[in-house]
Amino acid sequence: MNTRFYNAKILLTREDKSFEILEGELWVKGNTICYIGDGRNVPLEVVADLSAQKAAAETNAQEAAGNFAARELNWDREIDAEGNLIMPGFKNAHTHSAMTFLRSSADDLPLQEWLYEQVFPREAQLQEEDSYWLTALANLEYLTSGITAQFDMYFFQDMVAKACVDMGFRVVQTSGLNNFGGTLEELEEKYLRLNDYDELSSYILGFHAEYTTSKELMEGVAALVQKYKAPMFVHNSETKLETDECRQRYGVSPTQLFDTMGMYDFGGGGYHCVWFDEADMDIFAKHGLTAVTNPGSNAKLASGIAPVDEMRKRGINLAIGTDGPASNNCLDMFKEMFLVTSLAKLRAMDASVMDANEVLYMATAGGAKGMGLLDCDCLAVGKKADLIMIDLQQPNMQPIRNITKNLVYSGSKQNVKMTMINGKILYENQKFHVNLDTAEIYQRANEIVARIK
Amino acid sequence: MNTRFYNAKILLTREDKSFEILEGELWVKGNTICYIGDGRNVPLEVVADLSAQKAAAETNAQEAAGNFAARELNWDREIDAEGNLIMPGFKNAHTHSAMTFLRSSADDLPLQEWLYEQVFPREAQLQEEDSYWLTALANLEYLTSGITAQFDMYFFQDMVAKACVDMGFRVVQTSGLNNFGGTLEELEEKYLRLNDYDELSSYILGFHAEYTTSKELMEGVAALVQKYKAPMFVHNSETKLETDECRQRYGVSPTQLFDTMGMYDFGGGGYHCVWFDEADMDIFAKHGLTAVTNPGSNAKLASGIAPVDEMRKRGINLAIGTDGPASNNCLDMFKEMFLVTSLAKLRAMDASVMDANEVLYMATAGGAKGMGLLDCDCLAVGKKADLIMIDLQQPNMQPIRNITKNLVYSGSKQNVKMTMINGKILYENQKFHVNLDTAEIYQRANEIVARIK
Repeated sequence: MNTRFYNAKILLTREDKSFEILEGELWVKGNTICYIGDGRNVPLEVVADLSAQKAAAETNAQEAAGNFAARELNWDREIDAEGNLIMPGFKNAHTHSAMTFLRSSADDLPLQEWLYEQVFPREAQLQEEDSYWLTALANLEYLTSGITAQFDMYFFQDMVAKACVDMGFRVVQTSGLNNFGGTLEELEEKYLRLNDYDELSSYILGFHAEYTTSKELMEGVAALVQKYKAPMFVHNSETKLETDECRQRYGVSPTQLFDTMGMYDFGGGGYHCVWFDEADMDIFAKHGLTAVTNPGSNAKLASGIAPVDEMRKRGINLAIGTDGPASNNCLDMFKEMFLVTSLAKLRAMDASVMDANEVLYMATAGGAKGMGLLDCDCLAVGKKADLIMIDLQQPNMQPIRNITKNLVYSGSKQNVKMTMINGKILYENQKFHVNLDTAEIYQRANEIVARIK
Repeated sequence: MNTRFYNAKILLTREDKSFEILEGELWVKGNTICYIGDGRNVPLEVVADLSAQKAAAETNAQEAAGNFAARELNWDREIDAEGNLIMPGFKNAHTHSAMTFLRSSADDLPLQEWLYEQVFPREAQLQEEDSYWLTALANLEYLTSGITAQFDMYFFQDMVAKACVDMGFRVVQTSGLNNFGGTLEELEEKYLRLNDYDELSSYILGFHAEYTTSKELMEGVAALVQKYKAPMFVHNSETKLETDECRQRYGVSPTQLFDTMGMYDFGGGGYHCVWFDEADMDIFAKHGLTAVTNPGSNAKLASGIAPVDEMRKRGINLAIGTDGPASNNCLDMFKEMFLVTSLAKLRAMDASVMDANEVLYMATAGGAKGMGLLDCDCLAVGKKADLIMIDLQQPNMQPIRNITKNLVYSGSKQNVKMTMINGKILYENQKFHVNLDTAEIYQRANEIVARIK
């Protein structure tokens, strides 16, 4: 697919993490952005490349470099953006996608009761094929919210990868290895195989959490980190109880424990990072780790408010995750972005902390960095075309005074007109184009819910 | 307009504030709900009434009481709800709609700087006609979020009423009277006139806030409350500074001051109610007042988290407002509902407080009660048809295990398929039917923004 977007506002990410909006065109050849500009002065090799596929001989490259000639190139789609915004897709940097089957099954309960009486017994009834349909359901929701990649931790990871690849969705997985499930051999095998399974699939070393995992298993993960000189992600300091118990067991916080064991020697990071102290933040800064914040889940489960502004001040890379649909319960980056900044403001009791642009960076490039997706972190020539179109002609985006602030403070998934992953349009004008039938996905999910009491 | 919804799930509000979902039909005659049920055993007078308009003589009332006959009645529209949910429209119980012109103009600033350096100087440049278009813009956004009535406090209130009535939007206004604008005479004149202007317009006594209003003016408001034996609303205890300064000036909190002055003798309530103490809550409970919470605004401006669960336990009527688009910045009841419950959970550090159903009640019947809209607070025969249709066939509402929890925790304005006010469909499948051209509304708003630096 070669796609030309014209008459667009294009959100460019600057080196200093700020944004710039360019008016013009964005061209996608196959799965890659090949041109961004005003449609004039297009590099000749781009023109030649796009025309070669049609009728190279006919192309006068000099002429073709103008706006007129753009229409003459070999496009599968030419999309008039009508002044709307093309921006990088959101990166959902922490989730448990297949937990869609637990949505609205156990809300308004204390965390421990929720986890031990509602979640674990039902998860035990989950079958392998279930995770295909439940992940597919989550992917649909991601697409409606402009999310183009997810960082998933759940069971049946081959099925998760298959559901994502079948639909064209980009997925990074990590292991939920703990005392009750998984082995180090499985972790290593999946790390090698799912990194090599498809261009849309990748895998990062990890395990569930300190409080669910023995010292021996953690030492095994540390050995894999050292063997592959690879980054590692894990649930880290989500609740006060978790950090208190870790200090009782080991005398240090989870972050300090992981650091001492060498698990953070090659990067990676943590999910949640709510109950961080100064020493934890220093470790994250020192190793260039990514802190993934999950404000919707942390608020709904009353876990606390993460010190995102304190981490930002230390230069720690920050990313945003929805967490799973059992705890959030929705998979909506617009909701999370508003929560990141507003909870940070409440925590500090200062309305000036966590500027909207910082949050937008977290939701896009910050997440991509943590997920190892540097080839689709922003809009630039040579990057993979993971991008979305935002409808600015809706009341919540008017007046158009400051588009990036509008996105974070008044934006909504309803503004997502189109979601493209790896050069393919998977969602456009409320319709899905994902190789699977949405009605079947809904039906399967409801059947699973009916079966698992 | 007579409208028949069939094949619907219908959300009924019980006396004990819980909800029940009925599968069946909902009929609207003119602006009023005339039937809810399974389409059989329709009361004969309803059938006769609907058929009378067409060809009364032909109707065999006995036969007409069946489902078949429903199709034979005099409908302007028959809408197959396809299993989707019909529910009462949301009531936005506190806003400053025309502040759309300040959206994204002054974010990420400390509250005082925001108010005195950004908001007030720009408001001073606002012209009367501006408020027509700026209110219209807000009304569009309300419709997309399923909001069917707003409780507005702003300038140029005739224009506000006109914009709403022109569009078919239900509006309750109160006065923003303070030391810098408005007089008691104006307040009384508007109270009398805008309550009598149109069936969609009503007016409740009120003023801006203690910290902006002299004792003399407040005494004047109190006199009007006594004269008309009428409820009164006011900004109340939004920030800690406000309550601290009130205690310095008067030795008591704003609530205690208003109570002592007799302003709460006939009901009403307060907006924000963040910095309430036990005595304040006791006063609200004693007088049957309504506390309107504005969690998006309170979070974004770092004002604090209102004690909604504590108020709920005292039986205080609770309602939800978006506040104005300069402070929130969006006008989305789904966002506010999630914030009400999740911020209450964080405040209590207990995931079990503020059950989703409580929040749904606040956003519908609770708001209606505070706004004096008891004729459109829920779905029942004889109530005004202010209702919305929620699309359940979207991924964030699947699986369908618990619809009311889905609404509060994973619902989105994108699920709003249709918004009907006073029997008229004003928004359906992303399209507006509001007598005004949306493109002109956007253009006017942008022109105003360009003019007011």
